[in-house]
Amino acid sequence: MLHIPALEKLVHELSRLPGIGPKTAQRLAYYVLKSKDSYPTQLSEALMRVQAEVHTCTDCFNYTDRTVCKYCEDSHRHSDILCLVEEPSDISRIESSGAFRGRYHVLHGVISPLEGITAKDLKVQELLNKIEEGIAGTRPTIKEVIFAFDADLEGDTTALYLTKVLQGKGVKLSRIAHGIPMGSDIDFIDDRTMGRALENRIEL
Amino acid sequence: MLHIPALEKLVHELSRLPGIGPKTAQRLAYYVLKSKDSYPTQLSEALMRVQAEVHTCTDCFNYTDRTVCKYCEDSHRHSDILCLVEEPSDISRIESSGAFRGRYHVLHGVISPLEGITAKDLKVQELLNKIEEGIAGTRPTIKEVIFAFDADLEGDTTALYLTKVLQGKGVKLSRIAHGIPMGSDIDFIDDRTMGRALENRIEL
Repeated sequence: MLHIPALEKLVHELSRLPGIGPKTAQRLAYYVLKSKDSYPTQLSEALMRVQAEVHTCTDCFNYTDRTVCKYCEDSHRHSDILCLVEEPSDISRIESSGAFRGRYHVLHGVISPLEGITAKDLKVQELLNKIEEGIAGTRPTIKEVIFAFDADLEGDTTALYLTKVLQGKGVKLSRIAHGIPMGSDIDFIDDRTMGRALENRIEL
Repeated sequence: MLHIPALEKLVHELSRLPGIGPKTAQRLAYYVLKSKDSYPTQLSEALMRVQAEVHTCTDCFNYTDRTVCKYCEDSHRHSDILCLVEEPSDISRIESSGAFRGRYHVLHGVISPLEGITAKDLKVQELLNKIEEGIAGTRPTIKEVIFAFDADLEGDTTALYLTKVLQGKGVKLSRIAHGIPMGSDIDFIDDRTMGRALENRIEL
C-alpha cells in the first residue's frame, strides 16, 4: 500500500516480469525513483526501441532488427543442417559452445497439453514448408534436423511429435545428448540423469 | 552477445536495476520481446508517469504525488514526535506495524565514510531547521525524535552523529530496539543480536 497511484502502477507493471514478486518490484520502483540521472527515461526509451526495432527473422524466427537474422545471412554456415530450438534465447547458448555451424529454426514454444499449447501455436508448419521447399529444390535441401529442447516432459513430447511428423521426409533426425554434465561428480547426479547416461552410453 | 543493438541496450538498462545481473536482465528482455500485448508500452508509460508525478514531500521528504505526503497532511497524527528513517520505503514497513502515529522525516541515506556520504548529502539541515522552527514557535514543537535506522555500522554511525548534533536542543532522542525477533528460536540467534538483547534488557 504505497498510496501513490503512479508508483503503484509502476510496481504492478514491474511485478509482471518473470521472477519479480511484489516485494522485489517495490524495491526496483524505489530504485527508479531514487536514480538521480535520467534512468527512467533511458529504460523507457530502450523498451520502446526494442518494441519498434526487434522482430522475428522471416526465415528462422530468431529475433533480429533486420529482415533475416545474422545466422540466416551468414553464407559460411551449413544450410543442410537445422537446429530446432524452443526460444531465441537458446540460440546464444548453443552459439557460445562453438560446436554448431548450421542454421536454426525457432519454434517459439513447446507442445504443452497442460498449458493448451499445441503444434498449431508453434512454428511447425513453417518448418515443414522449409523441408518441402528443400525437396522441391526452391531452397537448400535439409539433410538433418537436431532437436535442442529442454530435458523435460514438454521437450520430450515435442520431440516425439516432430519425429512422427518428419518421418519419411528423407531427413535425418537427432536430439542433443542427455547425460552427466562435464566436470561434475558422479556422486551428486540424480537418478534420472544417471539412467539416461547409462541408456545413451557411447561405444568406445 | 546478442548482436542486436536495441536488445543489448535494453539488457544494459535492465541490468542497472539492483539485484538484476546480466543473465537475469537478458531473461527479462526476452520476456518483454515475447509479451504479445502492449507490455513494453505499459511499462514505459508507468516509468515516465512516475518520473513526472512522483517527487519528495516538501515537509518530510517521503515520496508523494502531491505537495505534502499523506502522513504530513493527516491532522490526526501527533506532530510532536518524529520518526527518522533512511529511505521512504522504510515508512511503509513502520506504518504496517501500526505502532507509530507521529510524523516522519526521511534522511535519504545514512552517513557512510566508505561511500563518501556525509551529513551534508542527507536531509540533516532540514531536520535541524524543523526543530529550530519548533523552538521558535513557527511550527509545532518536536518533543521526541526516534531513530529507525538499519541495525548496521552506517545506521549506528548516523545515530551517533545525530545524537551529538541534536543534544541540548531540548528534544528527547531514542532509537528503535535491537533484540530477538518475535517468534524466533533462541538457539538460532547470532552472537551480536544476543549481546544486544542482553545489554538492552527490560526491567519487569
